[in-house]
Amino acid sequence: MNLSINDFKYTYPSERLLMGPGPSNVAPRVLQAMANPCIGHLDPQFLAIMDETQQLLRFLFQTKNPLTIPVSGTGSAGMETCLVNMIEPGDEAVICVNGVFGVRMTEIVQRIGGKLLRVDGEWGRAMDPDLVRRAIKGKQPKMLAVVHGETSTGAFSDLAEFASIARECGAIYVVDMVTTLGGMNVPIDDLNIDVAYSGTQKCISCPPGLSPISFGPKAMEALDKRKTPVVSWYLDMGMVKSYWGNERKYHHTAPINMTYGFREALRIIAEEGLQTRFERHLKHHRALVAGLETMGLSMLVPEKERLPMLNAIKIPEGVDDLQVRRALLNGFGIEIGAGLGPLAGKIWRVGLMGHTSTMRSVLLFLTALETVLKSQGFKARPGAIEAATAV
Amino acid sequence: MNLSINDFKYTYPSERLLMGPGPSNVAPRVLQAMANPCIGHLDPQFLAIMDETQQLLRFLFQTKNPLTIPVSGTGSAGMETCLVNMIEPGDEAVICVNGVFGVRMTEIVQRIGGKLLRVDGEWGRAMDPDLVRRAIKGKQPKMLAVVHGETSTGAFSDLAEFASIARECGAIYVVDMVTTLGGMNVPIDDLNIDVAYSGTQKCISCPPGLSPISFGPKAMEALDKRKTPVVSWYLDMGMVKSYWGNERKYHHTAPINMTYGFREALRIIAEEGLQTRFERHLKHHRALVAGLETMGLSMLVPEKERLPMLNAIKIPEGVDDLQVRRALLNGFGIEIGAGLGPLAGKIWRVGLMGHTSTMRSVLLFLTALETVLKSQGFKARPGAIEAATAV
Repeated sequence: MNLSINDFKYTYPSERLLMGPGPSNVAPRVLQAMANPCIGHLDPQFLAIMDETQQLLRFLFQTKNPLTIPVSGTGSAGMETCLVNMIEPGDEAVICVNGVFGVRMTEIVQRIGGKLLRVDGEWGRAMDPDLVRRAIKGKQPKMLAVVHGETSTGAFSDLAEFASIARECGAIYVVDMVTTLGGMNVPIDDLNIDVAYSGTQKCISCPPGLSPISFGPKAMEALDKRKTPVVSWYLDMGMVKSYWGNERKYHHTAPINMTYGFREALRIIAEEGLQTRFERHLKHHRALVAGLETMGLSMLVPEKERLPMLNAIKIPEGVDDLQVRRALLNGFGIEIGAGLGPLAGKIWRVGLMGHTSTMRSVLLFLTALETVLKSQGFKARPGAIEAATAV
Repeated sequence: MNLSINDFKYTYPSERLLMGPGPSNVAPRVLQAMANPCIGHLDPQFLAIMDETQQLLRFLFQTKNPLTIPVSGTGSAGMETCLVNMIEPGDEAVICVNGVFGVRMTEIVQRIGGKLLRVDGEWGRAMDPDLVRRAIKGKQPKMLAVVHGETSTGAFSDLAEFASIARECGAIYVVDMVTTLGGMNVPIDDLNIDVAYSGTQKCISCPPGLSPISFGPKAMEALDKRKTPVVSWYLDMGMVKSYWGNERKYHHTAPINMTYGFREALRIIAEEGLQTRFERHLKHHRALVAGLETMGLSMLVPEKERLPMLNAIKIPEGVDDLQVRRALLNGFGIEIGAGLGPLAGKIWRVGLMGHTSTMRSVLLFLTALETVLKSQGFKARPGAIEAATAV
């Protein structure tokens, strides 16, 4: 334990173009906001910043829910928060699984002693509502959970369909919006969503570290009526709500500077406007796909089920997955994502999220990918840039 | 949901002197580090930054433990991490309680189905080892947990004493170092501590958002031998260790920019040197106490049990707690802490943690407090500044 620790050569992060499944690129305004002086978690100034953050977050979720806050952990902490607060041991939970993040929900439900009803859909496709209808026939589950945009496959599901199913069977409707919030229209009040959670590092373009959640009236009622304490003290919304609400009762020290950054990222969204932002995501997604298909590549997900912010591209035969990703990162500073689980080695996941969703990103990526694929012997057809810019 | 959200008047944080129970003031270097570009959580550059962070953290904990990492949540998440990973339903856990944070541990143990053996000590005093010896006589608890420095009272306990007790009964020895790590000597390998956790926002002087933990061989063995899954997916160290270890297996997206700030705060500590840093904390604590006692104020905790970084001052008779704290904050930009639980209204908690522990803080605080107390009719005796500077 001597002081040679000071002899380290320290690593500094490069300016990557973040086109993986998140984090996305963070605007300088957000980074600068995080560098504001740290103040106390009960300082009246911080309490005002909390209120402003909640108002902006309600705007983004399009909700009136009082309990609309960033949880003090990354997206998976948000997932865990929603499940541990809604499910007591023995409660039946229907989990729709069409990718890695649905699987993750089933693992959490099992750990906390919930009675799991797992409905498996096809990976790379929207979740089929009829599968769920058949599986729950005659049952009255406590909760029905679906992943809006499966980050592992690039497909999105129809939230209105699952809202109907949840209403029919009386279940609390929980939606994972980690990838979609800020990039697709998810008006949670209009969609009758009872519980929603997301992450900051995807279409909100704030560094990872917080997880926005919103609990509606039905969720609050379930929270009040619990017979057992929430198994997690840290994520117990019955207590955390008193810190974010009018009581201002200390629970745990909030991540102060992350909250500054998050508020700034939400301000950028409010300034752009939701509709404009969603259209921007869609436009650049279409441009990317037009370019890729012109080159001769194909997408994993059928057109109508494709997420605009996460594009799953089939890796062409004979092309080395890892070599391509390394060449993009080392030669061009572009990060893209690998496939997960059964899709490992079969797809690339290319994000166009939040601040990253620009025509500049699309054109640079298409150009770099074409160059790298050529070096791998893949004959890309000409005209990708023209096709992309014509969208 | 219209765009009037852009008409907000936004609040910006002032440059406070943070002399509460944490967060402490953050050095500009740390804030600037957090504003570095966000990169991916599997980027080779970030993996290098993770390794450097772990090496620096091992230096601070004075340990060789491989699993020495920042957990992706604030200090209470670190507490929960240690308890949920070590305790399975039915396992007996001895929790020493001499303040709010001991109570918090008992709550977590009960939520996760542990068999709680609570030993109550006196609030405002070191935990008495004999109380624990008597309580566990003839028992073989799975775990023994003690809070090194009780942030709620300003007292610290003798870690070597509890190490002997844990060894005698074969228990896993867990220590809360939220307040002390970085400000007092806590060489966890030498002290035979199996599990330690802390926060970033106290003597490490990084904004809140991460919780440094270290698991020793006995803890790793307990983790391997578990019969039930860890109830928290997010905090399951059996999985998180594969991301921080050589496998680099994705678990959850790490808080990237918080990690930059944390690494920079650890570098500052390494540059200063541990011994110098501990002496600095002690010196300014002594200066503060000399000034306060000269003024005619008195401390809650007996001299030998006082934390150097958190000073519990008895509120003099006839002085209004809230008015004094408000006057310090609004008139001088100084934040101090209120009493918690049974000590609410009876003490002020004045922190001299990390970057805040300077003679400048001591002198400004004494001067401001004297001014405010005079306006409350309290007759401070003269000579506080002279007494402080003479230390």
